[in-house]
Amino acid sequence: MAGNTIGQIFRVTTFGESHGIALGAIIDGCPPGLALTEADMQHDLDRRRPGTSKYTTQRREPDAVKILSGVFEGKTTGTSIGLMIENTDQRSKDYSKIKDVFRPGHADFTYHHKYGIRDYRGGGRSSARETAMRVAAGAVAKKYLAQVHGIQVRAYLAQMGDVTIDTVDWAQVEQNPFFCPDPNKLDELDALIRQLKKDGDSIGAKLTVVAENLPVGLGEPVFDRLDADIAHALMGINAVKGVEIGDGFDVVTQRGSEHRDEIHPDGFASNHAGGILGGISSGQPLVAHLALKPTSSITVPGKSIDIHGESADVVTRGRHDPCVGIRAVPIAEAMVAIVLMDHLLRHRGQMGANPSI
Amino acid sequence: MAGNTIGQIFRVTTFGESHGIALGAIIDGCPPGLALTEADMQHDLDRRRPGTSKYTTQRREPDAVKILSGVFEGKTTGTSIGLMIENTDQRSKDYSKIKDVFRPGHADFTYHHKYGIRDYRGGGRSSARETAMRVAAGAVAKKYLAQVHGIQVRAYLAQMGDVTIDTVDWAQVEQNPFFCPDPNKLDELDALIRQLKKDGDSIGAKLTVVAENLPVGLGEPVFDRLDADIAHALMGINAVKGVEIGDGFDVVTQRGSEHRDEIHPDGFASNHAGGILGGISSGQPLVAHLALKPTSSITVPGKSIDIHGESADVVTRGRHDPCVGIRAVPIAEAMVAIVLMDHLLRHRGQMGANPSI
Amino acid sequence: MAGNTIGQIFRVTTFGESHGIALGAIIDGCPPGLALTEADMQHDLDRRRPGTSKYTTQRREPDAVKILSGVFEGKTTGTSIGLMIENTDQRSKDYSKIKDVFRPGHADFTYHHKYGIRDYRGGGRSSARETAMRVAAGAVAKKYLAQVHGIQVRAYLAQMGDVTIDTVDWAQVEQNPFFCPDPNKLDELDALIRQLKKDGDSIGAKLTVVAENLPVGLGEPVFDRLDADIAHALMGINAVKGVEIGDGFDVVTQRGSEHRDEIHPDGFASNHAGGILGGISSGQPLVAHLALKPTSSITVPGKSIDIHGESADVVTRGRHDPCVGIRAVPIAEAMVAIVLMDHLLRHRGQMGANPSI
Amino acid sequence: MAGNTIGQIFRVTTFGESHGIALGAIIDGCPPGLALTEADMQHDLDRRRPGTSKYTTQRREPDAVKILSGVFEGKTTGTSIGLMIENTDQRSKDYSKIKDVFRPGHADFTYHHKYGIRDYRGGGRSSARETAMRVAAGAVAKKYLAQVHGIQVRAYLAQMGDVTIDTVDWAQVEQNPFFCPDPNKLDELDALIRQLKKDGDSIGAKLTVVAENLPVGLGEPVFDRLDADIAHALMGINAVKGVEIGDGFDVVTQRGSEHRDEIHPDGFASNHAGGILGGISSGQPLVAHLALKPTSSITVPGKSIDIHGESADVVTRGRHDPCVGIRAVPIAEAMVAIVLMDHLLRHRGQMGANPSI
Repeated sequence: MAGNTIGQIFRVTTFGESHGIALGAIIDGCPPGLALTEADMQHDLDRRRPGTSKYTTQRREPDAVKILSGVFEGKTTGTSIGLMIENTDQRSKDYSKIKDVFRPGHADFTYHHKYGIRDYRGGGRSSARETAMRVAAGAVAKKYLAQVHGIQVRAYLAQMGDVTIDTVDWAQVEQNPFFCPDPNKLDELDALIRQLKKDGDSIGAKLTVVAENLPVGLGEPVFDRLDADIAHALMGINAVKGVEIGDGFDVVTQRGSEHRDEIHPDGFASNHAGGILGGISSGQPLVAHLALKPTSSITVPGKSIDIHGESADVVTRGRHDPCVGIRAVPIAEAMVAIVLMDHLLRHRGQMGANPSI
Repeated sequence: MAGNTIGQIFRVTTFGESHGIALGAIIDGCPPGLALTEADMQHDLDRRRPGTSKYTTQRREPDAVKILSGVFEGKTTGTSIGLMIENTDQRSKDYSKIKDVFRPGHADFTYHHKYGIRDYRGGGRSSARETAMRVAAGAVAKKYLAQVHGIQVRAYLAQMGDVTIDTVDWAQVEQNPFFCPDPNKLDELDALIRQLKKDGDSIGAKLTVVAENLPVGLGEPVFDRLDADIAHALMGINAVKGVEIGDGFDVVTQRGSEHRDEIHPDGFASNHAGGILGGISSGQPLVAHLALKPTSSITVPGKSIDIHGESADVVTRGRHDPCVGIRAVPIAEAMVAIVLMDHLLRHRGQMGANPSI
Repeated sequence: MAGNTIGQIFRVTTFGESHGIALGAIIDGCPPGLALTEADMQHDLDRRRPGTSKYTTQRREPDAVKILSGVFEGKTTGTSIGLMIENTDQRSKDYSKIKDVFRPGHADFTYHHKYGIRDYRGGGRSSARETAMRVAAGAVAKKYLAQVHGIQVRAYLAQMGDVTIDTVDWAQVEQNPFFCPDPNKLDELDALIRQLKKDGDSIGAKLTVVAENLPVGLGEPVFDRLDADIAHALMGINAVKGVEIGDGFDVVTQRGSEHRDEIHPDGFASNHAGGILGGISSGQPLVAHLALKPTSSITVPGKSIDIHGESADVVTRGRHDPCVGIRAVPIAEAMVAIVLMDHLLRHRGQMGANPSI
Repeated sequence: MAGNTIGQIFRVTTFGESHGIALGAIIDGCPPGLALTEADMQHDLDRRRPGTSKYTTQRREPDAVKILSGVFEGKTTGTSIGLMIENTDQRSKDYSKIKDVFRPGHADFTYHHKYGIRDYRGGGRSSARETAMRVAAGAVAKKYLAQVHGIQVRAYLAQMGDVTIDTVDWAQVEQNPFFCPDPNKLDELDALIRQLKKDGDSIGAKLTVVAENLPVGLGEPVFDRLDADIAHALMGINAVKGVEIGDGFDVVTQRGSEHRDEIHPDGFASNHAGGILGGISSGQPLVAHLALKPTSSITVPGKSIDIHGESADVVTRGRHDPCVGIRAVPIAEAMVAIVLMDHLLRHRGQMGANPSI
C-alpha cells in the first residue's frame, strides 16, 4: 500500500530508483510566500552527495535538483511543489551476477518476496539514492523553519565504530568530510576508514540531531507525539536500527530523581528529556540520536542463496561507502525538519483562534 | 491537530482522561467474522492493570471493558467496534497542591503551554491510564494475528536499573509480576523495588518485544517501513525514550561482515537485523527493544515552578509505580500487534490480485 | 477498510448500530477553550429525533448524549472528545421474517455480500440511526464556527414530491415539523404525508443548506476542494442521490455570460456559483442542495430474494417515515459544519504565518 | 493544507501549473506486475487534449507523458510511479492585462485571497490543464481494473445546453469529437458550438459515467461510501457544479414503491439506485451524472474589479473552449477509475482472509 508519503499537512511524497530515469518529490502544503530557488536545496544535496570526498563512494552524481512547479517569481505559491533530479549516471553495467542472488543484509530478499518483481539495478527503490529527494524536501522545511521561526536543525557524527566523539564544536562540523564536531578525532576516523577500505569491510555509526529554538507545544498526543513522529522519520532512513530521544537507553539505569529535569524560574536545569515532555516540545533543544548499521555492500565474500533457493557466494563490487552513516547527516537533518514543519502547521491549525484567549 | 488515531486500514482511535468519566476506543477496519468477546481483551487489561501485585501501584481499577458495537452474535461484523471502560475510581481528591505547579519531568508543563487548559486530575490525558484502551485494541489485533495467521506477539522485561536479564524462558514470563523471563533474577528485582520504595524513588527499564511467524513482505517503503511504524508506535508509549530493532545501537561498533545475516538454503544463519530488511519483514522473528524512563512521580522533593513562573518545591504523593516499565509489557505487545495488523491489511490490499502471478 | 472517519484535522469517527448497546463518536482536533455541554448538542439531536411529530416515525429515542472526555470545567481541552448515546429502545422483536431476506432498495443485499455477516436488527450499521452521532459532532462544529467566526450553517426543506418551496423565510423553518421555510406550503405537505401514510408509501425530498459569513479561502485544491468535500459529506448521508453547489444542474443550459457572477467594488452581483470558485470559498453564502430518495421501508409489498437466492415477497413493517428527507435537515447542517470546521483548521495551519506578509 | 492527493491505498498526488515547466504525478500503491507503458496513458491524454478538433481550443499541447519510475522491464514494480508531462507551449505572452484583474467566474479571486500570491499565467494551478495528470493516472487504474477484474469505465456527453441526448450507442462515442453516443444529435451540437463561437460565449454540459462489471462490496461506510467518494472525485473536477448517482435529483418526486429496485432470482429488475446501495456497490452498473458550468473564459465583456478593488471590464482573449464539458469526458472516467481502484484495494485489504469463511 501507498507508503511513499510522510507528513499530514506538510506532506512529502517521493519516487525514483537508483538507476531509473529520475528521482522526484512533491511537497504539498508548503505555506505561500517563501522565497525558494534550487540553490536553497542544492547545498544540502551536495552535502549528501557521494563522491565529494575520498571517504565516501566515488560515484559521481551531480544531483542537480529542478523546481517544476509551485514557485512563481521566486516565491512559493502554496500549491504543490514538484521537484526532480535526473539520474545522469546510469552507466550500462552487467547486473547478471546480482540479478538472481540475494545479497545478505540487503533488501533484495524482502523486495523480491513482497513484490514478486524488482528493479535490481543498484538496489532500485531500496537504494539510499532515494534519500536525495528527502534532503531536497527537507531543505525547504529547514528554510521555512529558520526564516519564519528562527528554528535551526543540525546534525553531526557522534560515533563511528569505536571512535566516540564527545566534544561538540558546531563550527567544526562542516569543516571536515566526516561531519565530525571534534577536530581531534579526525585522524582516528581517517585511519579507520583506510583500514576498512583495505579490508573491504564497513562500519556502523551513530549520529546526533539537534533542533534549537523550538516553540513549546509541537506534538499531537497520544499517538502523533513529536517523539513518536521523530522516531518514525529517523527509523525510516535506510540502515537505521535505533533511535533515541534525549538520554535514550541510558534511562534504563537512571533513577527518577536523577532523570527528571528540574525547572527554575529562568528555565530548565538540565535536558535529560531531549526537549520533549509527554510527546510535546518543551522549548528546550530537541536532541535525537540514531544508529546506522554497517552497509552490507562489502567485498568480503558472504554466503547467501539465489532466487531458486540454491547456495551462492556473494561479493558486492562497485563504488560503496565504508560508512554510510557519514552521508546520513544531512538526511537525518532533513527528516527532523520535515517532521517539525508538519507539526508546526498541525499545531497552528488547531490552535489558531483559541476562543478562550 | 487530531493525533489520537493510529493505523491506516486497521485504525484505532482513543479518548479518555485519568479521572474522567470513561476511557474509550473505536477500532475501525477490523475484518468481519472474528469471534470476539470482552474476555478476549480482559486478560491483557488485567496484565496491564496496576494493583495486581505489590510491585506496582495499589490503585484499584477493575478496568472492565465493554463492547458497544461492531460485534453481532459473537463475531465482528466489519463495522466499527466501540469499546469503553468506565472509570470507577474517581475519588474526589484535593488537587489544589498540584493544580498550578508543573511537576518536573511530567507533561504538565507542555500540556499547559500547548492547550492553555488542562485536566490536572491525575495527569488527565497525559496519564498512562489512556494506555488501557491501547491494550484493549491490541488484544483484538493479537487475536486476529494468532488465529488467522499464527502470528504470536510477546514481550518481556529485559533490564531494570542495573539488573540485566539475559536468559529468556518464555514460560517464566507470566509466572511473576515482573514479566521477567529468568527466574534467577526475581530476587534482585524484588530487592531493587523494595529499595526504591524506601527511597521514594523510581527506576528505568528496558523491554523486548518479539513477534514470531510473520510472513515475508510486511512494510511499505520508503516512509511507512515496518521498522519506522514500529518505532512510531513504541516511542509513542508514555515514558519511552529509545527504540531499537534487532541489534539496535550495537550496530555502531559492528563491521558489515559481522552484522549481515548470511542466508543458507534452509534459512538465515543469524538475526542481527531483527527480522526486517529494507523496511520489510523477512520472515524471521521481529525483535524490538524499548527503553522506559524512570517515572517522575516520586516522593523525593524536586525544584520546579508554578504557572506564574514562581519557584516551587514538588513532591508527588499518591499511588505510583517505582518502575512503570513493568506495566508497559502488555502495552508494548499491543502496539506492535496493532502495527502488524495494519501492515498485514495494507500489504493484502495492494497484493491481493497480482496480475503477474 | 476503515471508513468511519471524516475530516483530517477536525476529525470525527463514529460507531454504533440501530439496535446495539450504544452509539458513539470521537471528535479529535477540536480547539481548546470552547465552552461545551451536552445541551449544546441536545438541541440538534432533538431536531433530528423521530417521534417528535406526527409526520415522522413514532419510535421514541430520547437520544441523550453524554460527554465522556475532552471537556474539563465546562471547556474543551484540545484532547479527543468522547461522546455516547445509549440505545434505550432495543425492544426484543421478532426479526425472523427479515433476517434472511433482502429488502429491495435497502443496504441488506450489499452488507450481506460485502461482510458475509450483518446485524439485521433495524438495519444495523446501515440504519439512519447512526446519523445521530453526526448531528452531535456537527453541533460542536456549529458552535465553534458561530462563536469564533460568526459563521452560521442552516438548512431547510426545498421540495417534497411535487411540492416545491420557493419562498425562504428563515424564521419559519423551526416553526413547523417539516423545516419548511414557507408557511403557505404547510397544508400541501401535510396532505401529501397523510396520503402516503394511507398508501403505505414514501416520497423523496430536496434540501438546501446555506452557510453564511464564511471567510474567503477555505478549500484545498486540486482534490480537497471545498465543493468536493461538501459533496463527499452530503452524498455520504443515507438516501442521498444527488448534490449540487449553487445553480447545480441548471448550469447545463446556462451560457457563460449568464452564469458568471460579476464583481462590483461593493461585492458580487449574483451567486450562481454558490459561494465557491475554483474549489475555494469566495466569501459569498455557500449554497448546496441535496436530493434524498424515498425510503424503501414501505408497506407496499415488493419482490425480492432471500439469502439463498429464492424469490420472496417483502413488506417492511414497523415505524417508518414517509419522508426521511425531513429528518435529514439537521444532518445536512451537521455534515456541512464538520467540513467547514475541518477546512477552517486546514487553511489556518498552512496560512498561519505567511512569510510574505 | 496539502490537498493534492486523492485515494488512500491507491493514491495519486499531482503538481503543475498551466504555464509552468511541467505537470507531474506520483501514483503510489499500484499493485506490481501490471504491464504499463506510456502508450497506455497517451490514448486518454489525446482524448482530453485540446486542439484535437475544431470544437475545442486550438492550443497545441502534445501532452507526451513520460514514466520516470516504478516500472521495470515493462511492468509495475509496486513502488511509486513518477509521471511527467513537459509544458512545451509556454509562449511568452503579455499577461499585464489580466494580472491584476479578477475574471468573473474564475478562481482568480479566491486564489488571490487565499494564498496572497498566484501564478496568473493561464490560470496557474487553477487551470484545467492540471487535469492532464488525472487522466494519466486514471489510465493506469482503468488498465488494472479492465485487465484484472474486467471492469470497464466509460463516459459520454448526455446534454449540452438544450440539446439532450437520450439514445446511448457506445460504439458512437469515440466516433465524434463530442463524445456523443447518438449520431443523430451531431448536427445540433455542431450548430450550437458554431453559434457560441460567433457570440463569443460558452455553454454548460452534462456527462454520464458508467462502470460495468463491478463486484459487489466496494465502499466503506459510513463516511467513505462509494457514492460519497465518487461525488468527491467528480465534484473536484474543474467547473463541476452537480453530481448524481442513479436517478439523482429525479428521486425527489419518486415514490418508494417506484424507486426501489426489486430483486429477482436472476438479478435486479431495474437500476434506479445507479449500482450503489447503502454506499456499497451492488454489482449492477454504476451510473453517475455530472453537470459542468459554462466556462467564464468568454469574449463577452464582463464587470469585475482589480486587486485594488477598482472597477474593471474584463474580456478573456486567447484560445478557449465554448464547452469545457466535452473535454471532461476522459477526466470523469479517470476520476471514477481512480476511486474504484482505491476502493477495490481497500476492500481487499480488510476482506482478504475472512476468518469466518
